[in-house]
Amino acid sequence: MNPLNPSFAAEVERSFAGQPIMNLLGARLILAEAGVVEITLPYRVDLTQQHGYLHAGVVTTIADSACGYAAYTLMPAGSEVLSVEFKVNLLRPVQGETFVARAEVIKAGKTLTVVRADVFAITRNADRELVATMQGTMICVRK
Amino acid sequence: MNPLNPSFAAEVERSFAGQPIMNLLGARLILAEAGVVEITLPYRVDLTQQHGYLHAGVVTTIADSACGYAAYTLMPAGSEVLSVEFKVNLLRPVQGETFVARAEVIKAGKTLTVVRADVFAITRNADRELVATMQGTMICVRK
Amino acid sequence: MNPLNPSFAAEVERSFAGQPIMNLLGARLILAEAGVVEITLPYRVDLTQQHGYLHAGVVTTIADSACGYAAYTLMPAGSEVLSVEFKVNLLRPVQGETFVARAEVIKAGKTLTVVRADVFAITRNADRELVATMQGTMICVRK
Amino acid sequence: MNPLNPSFAAEVERSFAGQPIMNLLGARLILAEAGVVEITLPYRVDLTQQHGYLHAGVVTTIADSACGYAAYTLMPAGSEVLSVEFKVNLLRPVQGETFVARAEVIKAGKTLTVVRADVFAITRNADRELVATMQGTMICVRK
Repeated sequence: MNPLNPSFAAEVERSFAGQPIMNLLGARLILAEAGVVEITLPYRVDLTQQHGYLHAGVVTTIADSACGYAAYTLMPAGSEVLSVEFKVNLLRPVQGETFVARAEVIKAGKTLTVVRADVFAITRNADRELVATMQGTMICVRK
Repeated sequence: MNPLNPSFAAEVERSFAGQPIMNLLGARLILAEAGVVEITLPYRVDLTQQHGYLHAGVVTTIADSACGYAAYTLMPAGSEVLSVEFKVNLLRPVQGETFVARAEVIKAGKTLTVVRADVFAITRNADRELVATMQGTMICVRK
Repeated sequence: MNPLNPSFAAEVERSFAGQPIMNLLGARLILAEAGVVEITLPYRVDLTQQHGYLHAGVVTTIADSACGYAAYTLMPAGSEVLSVEFKVNLLRPVQGETFVARAEVIKAGKTLTVVRADVFAITRNADRELVATMQGTMICVRK
Repeated sequence: MNPLNPSFAAEVERSFAGQPIMNLLGARLILAEAGVVEITLPYRVDLTQQHGYLHAGVVTTIADSACGYAAYTLMPAGSEVLSVEFKVNLLRPVQGETFVARAEVIKAGKTLTVVRADVFAITRNADRELVATMQGTMICVRK
């Protein structure tokens, strides 16, 4: 996939830094390539639901941002990206030391881009386990 | 819909109080009836994305908890509820003073319960605007 | 919801008549109002899956067409409608004499329209039972 | 993924042959391995929508059956499979000579199995193009 905006990586970083919720949750952008973005999040007790697992909404938050930015890497300069919709399947209790949401563009269009994200839990022994998967649609808005 | 657990309201309250993420976001449980749950969340800048709107993941977090607890009100005593999957459509930028996620059970089953949640933004003038809608599946796990 | 195209009902009928799959399945358009469309389908053995129930894909076919046309009723003259995505929850085995998919627009936008459809099974005694529900996104394409 | 039922391939074939809708549409089962199923469908005018493209509901029908049977290959003997829900993104107009739905299990559980299906259009020149993608949940029902 060919990026239309040569400075997409810098723009993703700048936009990510401008998402206060990422700071609140402790999420960090760790990869921004053409069509692929990864966001990581360390486990914290204040992010959990009633059983001590990461709340599905937190999993969704990093997956959605990863999807949005993966779509954004392929959009022309001067665009904004917004989430149209997404669907998440929770595959197992979200347990781990760290979590990584990896989003990849499936189909980039002029207006709509379809993206998939997998969220992995990483244990103390560096085992990776797929805990959730998202399929979503992002829209390109020209400024 | 007939609740199987006479003390469902107290159990929803107790479980909600045991979700640390709700405290971090500032969300509160405001209604727990048989098959219906409402959660409210005041706007806060640290919950936003790059344009100052509430992040779609935060919207999802309160919608998902509302769906889970709406399903839970109809489950037998001694159950746990987990999210299987959900789908969210974002209808407009999530702007407002306060947000309310209202979940209603569509079909309660022994194992799976299908729930819908609407998320409304409430403005200073008390206007309500639908900003997102979720359709999801919850599972009943016997302890 | 205000229709932008005064002849929307005639256009929905004409477009529906131009969907060969509706004829193959035996589906008929029974209602086309601003933002609301209903399609009906009588049970036929050759539409079933391995247990004799209507196949989920057939349920989806009438729900998707109902959603598309419900969105179409609110689009300007000279538009085409295409499905972007949809999500379907199957609530119970799809048993009945006749089925009705009723779609209603939730949010009509210039480009994207979000629609919900409920599919009901109607028994010999005229009881209605909700068997499936769809939440989807339609796109308006200017010719 | 280890199949629990040594005769899963024969059972998938038998069950598929018992789906009358597959016969009506002209769909054929072409692959049934542990966790993976493919169904093919030749283009026919009577399967199309108003623009001459394969109707999204037909695409969904073969994707859903492929997902159900992919899940079924990993279920114990004496099980039935039912669709709980699925979400489909339509990526481009569904044009081609033949279509192939390929489903792969993402997570097989005792009760619920999460499956993904990609639907490809195959042109006269044997080019493959992804036209739709499904993410769904199947349930195992013990007879």
